[in-house]
Amino acid sequence: MEYLKLPGEIRVEDKEDRIMSGSNKPSSGQKGGLEPPGPGENPHTDLSRVYSKDLLPTAGGESLTCKFFQELVNILMDYIFKSNERSSKILDFHHPHQLKEGLEGFSLDLPDHPEPLEQILVDCRDTLKYGVKTGHPRFFNQLSSGLDLVGLAGQWLTSTANTNMFTYEVSPVFLLMEEVLLKKMQSIVGWCEEEGDGIFCPGGAVSNLYSLLVARYDFYPEVKTKGMCALPRLALFTSEHSHYSVRKAAAVLGMGSDSVQVVPCDERGKMISRELDSSIAEAKAKGLVPFYVNATAGTTVYGAFDPLTAIADVCDRHKLWLHVDAAWGGGLLMSRRHQGKLQGIERASSVTWNPHKLMGAPLQCSAILIKKRGLLQECNQLCAEYLFQSDKHYDISYDTGDKTIQCGRHVDVFKLWLMWKAKGSEGFGSQVNKCLENAEYLFKQLQRRADFKLVFESKPEHSNVCFWYLPPSLRGLPPGPDTNRRLHEVAPQIKAKMMEEGTTLIGYQPLGSNVNFFRCVFSNPATQHEDVDFLLEEIARLGSNL
Amino acid sequence: MEYLKLPGEIRVEDKEDRIMSGSNKPSSGQKGGLEPPGPGENPHTDLSRVYSKDLLPTAGGESLTCKFFQELVNILMDYIFKSNERSSKILDFHHPHQLKEGLEGFSLDLPDHPEPLEQILVDCRDTLKYGVKTGHPRFFNQLSSGLDLVGLAGQWLTSTANTNMFTYEVSPVFLLMEEVLLKKMQSIVGWCEEEGDGIFCPGGAVSNLYSLLVARYDFYPEVKTKGMCALPRLALFTSEHSHYSVRKAAAVLGMGSDSVQVVPCDERGKMISRELDSSIAEAKAKGLVPFYVNATAGTTVYGAFDPLTAIADVCDRHKLWLHVDAAWGGGLLMSRRHQGKLQGIERASSVTWNPHKLMGAPLQCSAILIKKRGLLQECNQLCAEYLFQSDKHYDISYDTGDKTIQCGRHVDVFKLWLMWKAKGSEGFGSQVNKCLENAEYLFKQLQRRADFKLVFESKPEHSNVCFWYLPPSLRGLPPGPDTNRRLHEVAPQIKAKMMEEGTTLIGYQPLGSNVNFFRCVFSNPATQHEDVDFLLEEIARLGSNL
Repeated sequence: MEYLKLPGEIRVEDKEDRIMSGSNKPSSGQKGGLEPPGPGENPHTDLSRVYSKDLLPTAGGESLTCKFFQELVNILMDYIFKSNERSSKILDFHHPHQLKEGLEGFSLDLPDHPEPLEQILVDCRDTLKYGVKTGHPRFFNQLSSGLDLVGLAGQWLTSTANTNMFTYEVSPVFLLMEEVLLKKMQSIVGWCEEEGDGIFCPGGAVSNLYSLLVARYDFYPEVKTKGMCALPRLALFTSEHSHYSVRKAAAVLGMGSDSVQVVPCDERGKMISRELDSSIAEAKAKGLVPFYVNATAGTTVYGAFDPLTAIADVCDRHKLWLHVDAAWGGGLLMSRRHQGKLQGIERASSVTWNPHKLMGAPLQCSAILIKKRGLLQECNQLCAEYLFQSDKHYDISYDTGDKTIQCGRHVDVFKLWLMWKAKGSEGFGSQVNKCLENAEYLFKQLQRRADFKLVFESKPEHSNVCFWYLPPSLRGLPPGPDTNRRLHEVAPQIKAKMMEEGTTLIGYQPLGSNVNFFRCVFSNPATQHEDVDFLLEEIARLGSNL
Repeated sequence: MEYLKLPGEIRVEDKEDRIMSGSNKPSSGQKGGLEPPGPGENPHTDLSRVYSKDLLPTAGGESLTCKFFQELVNILMDYIFKSNERSSKILDFHHPHQLKEGLEGFSLDLPDHPEPLEQILVDCRDTLKYGVKTGHPRFFNQLSSGLDLVGLAGQWLTSTANTNMFTYEVSPVFLLMEEVLLKKMQSIVGWCEEEGDGIFCPGGAVSNLYSLLVARYDFYPEVKTKGMCALPRLALFTSEHSHYSVRKAAAVLGMGSDSVQVVPCDERGKMISRELDSSIAEAKAKGLVPFYVNATAGTTVYGAFDPLTAIADVCDRHKLWLHVDAAWGGGLLMSRRHQGKLQGIERASSVTWNPHKLMGAPLQCSAILIKKRGLLQECNQLCAEYLFQSDKHYDISYDTGDKTIQCGRHVDVFKLWLMWKAKGSEGFGSQVNKCLENAEYLFKQLQRRADFKLVFESKPEHSNVCFWYLPPSLRGLPPGPDTNRRLHEVAPQIKAKMMEEGTTLIGYQPLGSNVNFFRCVFSNPATQHEDVDFLLEEIARLGSNL
């Protein structure tokens, strides 16, 4: 099927019709080793006879380029349509060895000689066929799901512009958009006009790494030249439910993962602020120097919000850097109904916020916001004059390349900027509300069913809902280690079947003393109540004989 | 103009024509606050009346989705065509304050309320209008240039698939493609079947950071938990012409930039291996512990290749980790004619290689290759069970999320894989040869002109050519500080004019004792000799009255 043909009602402008004029030109693209096209065959449309080198910039390649992209876009539109059809499979699972053997001619091998464009399009179709439809309304597996079409348009444009966020010289518009977005996000966080700096990063783990890097530099600027050996033994604090990237960053930055003090949480997964306080005292007693606290606004599994105000009080008292990892929870700031859950975030020295999660921006789109202006630049700049010339004729403060630990940096801002234009702040708000309503709906369904059990009984604060499925054989068994051992095996078995069937997808994990349980998250506004119902029915169906 | 309409010769499949069936359905997307469409108006085609929320997944949004993407693709194709027209401007320069003021209604501000889709498309057009055409055959400003259309197709598909390289569960095909690409690149580097590991990273600076991180871990695994304080004072070595990211990584990793020992280069910018040897001895004498040498295969400015074999000998003698930063020069490995320039690279413990540079893959596409298998995983894994479940039903060795310092990771491999299918290894080879031929052509033109002066007289080894323009007022002046001072100002002045005119774009910088000079690099296969001629004429024209 072809989606990108002209329906009758669409106006046709014939002036400057480059496709037609292109196809009147002789094709420069015929291979020496190929037979010439037969009578009536058009070399431009028979993609089995032409190669990538016949596309632009090859002279006369306009027509073929149009044709190739038309076919490509048809494949992509087909995929988008299928992703939105509830009846289509989310995945057509194959084990690694099966895919490597080459299914139905889909070979992953890299050839010495070129393949014709027709085969390239077949490869595109196959790649999508064996992939996972993360935009499907019944895909609940990751914090990032859904496929925002304006965001996608933004990505296509970004790829076409093919530049990077290095200097104003090569990215004037995108660098200004980054500034506008960062300022907006900072004002939403609650920082005043004079405060705020930041940068978009390749993912939340890198944003969290930046927070630790910049905090360390703020306390000990000598670390940049002299390294950790010049510093006292540092301690940083994060909750047991926080993202592992904080510990990873401590290892990468040469602090060592032992410098991370893990603070206990309550049963909902929220850091206990007085435990933080005693953990700090303990570290000091051991001769360590506390400098940094990571509070999580929206934990990965439970969706818990640490008590930011209480934690900020502790940080003030001990003069510590407060970082808020709102990678997952930051989206709630867009909703008047839910933003109160992040109260206190304005007191943070830095914030991670991933619009590619709850706000639905395509991957990747993550911001690190830093309250103190100039610190990021000071911390990272090396002033390589051969890359950042100071004698340019424009305002070089937009040459952000030296603020980062990257050099070239992908343009992650345009899609978000375009989505913001298309939805407005209010559009993001209602999208977030919808995701949280779905979570409440799921919560209510679970409350009233006997074959499921909630991991905790209180209403979800974020869009995470955690639960066990109790197969018939486990219902009514007394709680205890034996039941738990059997319950632990239920979720992986159901997940394995679910992947084979491909009708829906949800994640599971153990956490602390809780054996394997399902975690459902909602970040795709395409999901409706019927999809939530389907998920539960499907789990019950797949688990009925366990 | 519309590029994506159907030329007469393209077959039309009417079965399952979703556009038409879509447009027969009643539109659920009409805004309450908007007037209903008048008689004869089709709500689906009047993009000034519809919003992003009328697109899919909204029921009945298929037709509008097609229409929106059709218009978008027309804008993008228009841009691609213009980028390939030599007569079109590369940039329409505006200062930051001008763009921020809102040129011709192009406002960067983020609204509270949504804008109609028509405005979104206008925003797309404006974004491209004020940006820089990095695919233009006369854009010589960065190591990454050109716009490979199969690579672009790969990017569009990647964006549409919208997944990440976290686990096999969500990226089965892309993770296998990454493995295939890494193995291929490792075998091209010259490692044997049993050797080789790696990962694709967000840029060469991050790849270089990985090399240092993994090398440190290999010598001192305790660093992961205990940090730099548990280690002796380390020293690493890199040449004065190497990329600044090595020094930046040392600062980030907590080694401190002082741990970087800068090794002198010869006049061509190649590290002098006996200087490395004495630098190592000196460091040892100071009580430092040498552990890592970065050799550059293709320096940023001169395009110089460090003598890898001699450096590998030094590393062997001292038992040091040899990293080869072939971010820029790695592409030469694809060419039988030029691969010899990297002889010795097979002795490296790790290699950075950016296919987004000379090989023309769209941004970003950078690989870190590590010879010793398993090290990357050991170095970075934290085994967060709540993210990487060990009781899955498939081979979890493909769950690479814990190998990285990121968590989510953008899919950077598909575009490269698709380009490889479309060109074959031999296609990359001829593309690389072409870029280097252009450099030789420029070199020859400069040799025979009196108004230009080469920074060094020998034939370029890579596609970098460095030169001064001598305006009439400076020709024939005796060399000396006064002439140099005046010459230093020539390139920035010409560059400023060049940006205002927008006909071509080239970078300049000072380096060592050389005052500001132009650096031309070729990585866009669209560039022809006529473009090289144009560049020189344009510089001469813009500089004629200096």
